[in-house]
Amino acid sequence: MADAPYKLILLRHGESEWNAKNLFTGWVDVNLTEKGEKEAARGGELLKDAGLLPDVVHTSLQKRAIRTAQLALETADRLWIPVRRSWRLNERHYGALQGKNKAQIRDEFGEEQFMQWRRSYDTPPPVLEDGAEWSQSDDPRYAMIPSELRPRTECLKDVVIRMMPYWYDSIVPDLITGRTVLIAAHGNSLRALVKHLDNVSDADIAGLNIPTGIPLSYDLDDDFHPVNPGGTYLDPDAAKAAIEAVKNQGKKK
Amino acid sequence: MADAPYKLILLRHGESEWNAKNLFTGWVDVNLTEKGEKEAARGGELLKDAGLLPDVVHTSLQKRAIRTAQLALETADRLWIPVRRSWRLNERHYGALQGKNKAQIRDEFGEEQFMQWRRSYDTPPPVLEDGAEWSQSDDPRYAMIPSELRPRTECLKDVVIRMMPYWYDSIVPDLITGRTVLIAAHGNSLRALVKHLDNVSDADIAGLNIPTGIPLSYDLDDDFHPVNPGGTYLDPDAAKAAIEAVKNQGKKK
Repeated sequence: MADAPYKLILLRHGESEWNAKNLFTGWVDVNLTEKGEKEAARGGELLKDAGLLPDVVHTSLQKRAIRTAQLALETADRLWIPVRRSWRLNERHYGALQGKNKAQIRDEFGEEQFMQWRRSYDTPPPVLEDGAEWSQSDDPRYAMIPSELRPRTECLKDVVIRMMPYWYDSIVPDLITGRTVLIAAHGNSLRALVKHLDNVSDADIAGLNIPTGIPLSYDLDDDFHPVNPGGTYLDPDAAKAAIEAVKNQGKKK
Repeated sequence: MADAPYKLILLRHGESEWNAKNLFTGWVDVNLTEKGEKEAARGGELLKDAGLLPDVVHTSLQKRAIRTAQLALETADRLWIPVRRSWRLNERHYGALQGKNKAQIRDEFGEEQFMQWRRSYDTPPPVLEDGAEWSQSDDPRYAMIPSELRPRTECLKDVVIRMMPYWYDSIVPDLITGRTVLIAAHGNSLRALVKHLDNVSDADIAGLNIPTGIPLSYDLDDDFHPVNPGGTYLDPDAAKAAIEAVKNQGKKK
């Protein structure tokens, strides 16, 4: 194996209240379900069992990722490590789809449009206007994002563009000090990062799913590129089963 | 009222597993009891009801304070604020008394010695040797404290000395940006801070108790001194009752 001085762990939050209801969530700040809490604690157990102990944690500004980090770190007895947060790790902003039922949207707009909004790299859903229901335009946690920068809808490409400055300016500087870095975030902000790490094409990223609650570990070389492409799931069998389940998510009624 | 540009909130953690057992805890990293968890959530409710919403939180490296902050901020819907942690906010290191029953120590050493260890300003308990039971000398969270700095026992004066650099170098810089600062910490690290804020004498600090779980709010002037000396408890009646209860703690069997 090539020289791998840096350790990075990705952890996608467990089931949220709106995952359970099959709603588009995006920037809406829903909580974990009890199942999601258990997934998070199990993620912490996997870290502990693997002896892969984070020295610093980065989260989004959304409670389902923040609480996933807290529950995992509590289980791994690492609650005391430094914490950093950024909106740049938030879930994709789903625009006007936020708060809508996935199955209803598919029925209303048809399978093709539905899949394009969910999975195309560069087609964002319709804009969610400031002040509309499920808009976060008045949320104090985003007051530090100037209006022209604040997302009102995003495709995955938009997520890559707004996430990457955080990778370079905040995460890489933690890695370079030799710390094991945990990122607790969301399906799409983590896909954006994996796209960069594994150099996944715009076409192929559509088919990449990251399961919830299972730590995904990367060993990075001097240039912060993986020596284990695709990363290593701490529970590979559960990851494989979960990836299949996520693929079928759009088919739920 | 004098001009008070800065807002500071102190929150002492709720009941821990060793409070409940009447053991000297100090730097031993015990968890909250269920009662302690409820106290923390109630603290968050008081913050929310008062509209006193923290913009940044500082905690010790000990899980009873970290979890108190998490539970209070979850209740106040402020989980997303920046988090800072330091060992300088830790509870007083109780030296060789850590892990010992308070009532047994009183019986063994007599009321005078017991109260001197608990309450004198400048008499630390006997040193806890590195590697001894209940020593934290091998705990990775303290690996960044050089051996000559790491406490092995502390009196309150020692806590003041090690806490004050954090006040000046980390908390004041947050206050000066106009943020409402929450400090979630411990009986003695908060007494050390209150001693400074309210200019309490070495003699009088012995009689000052800070109740658990009830936010104590200070309005600070341009020089970071209180315009409301003694601070303002968000639930004054509960605070008064709790202060009496803490005073009687040493008398428990």
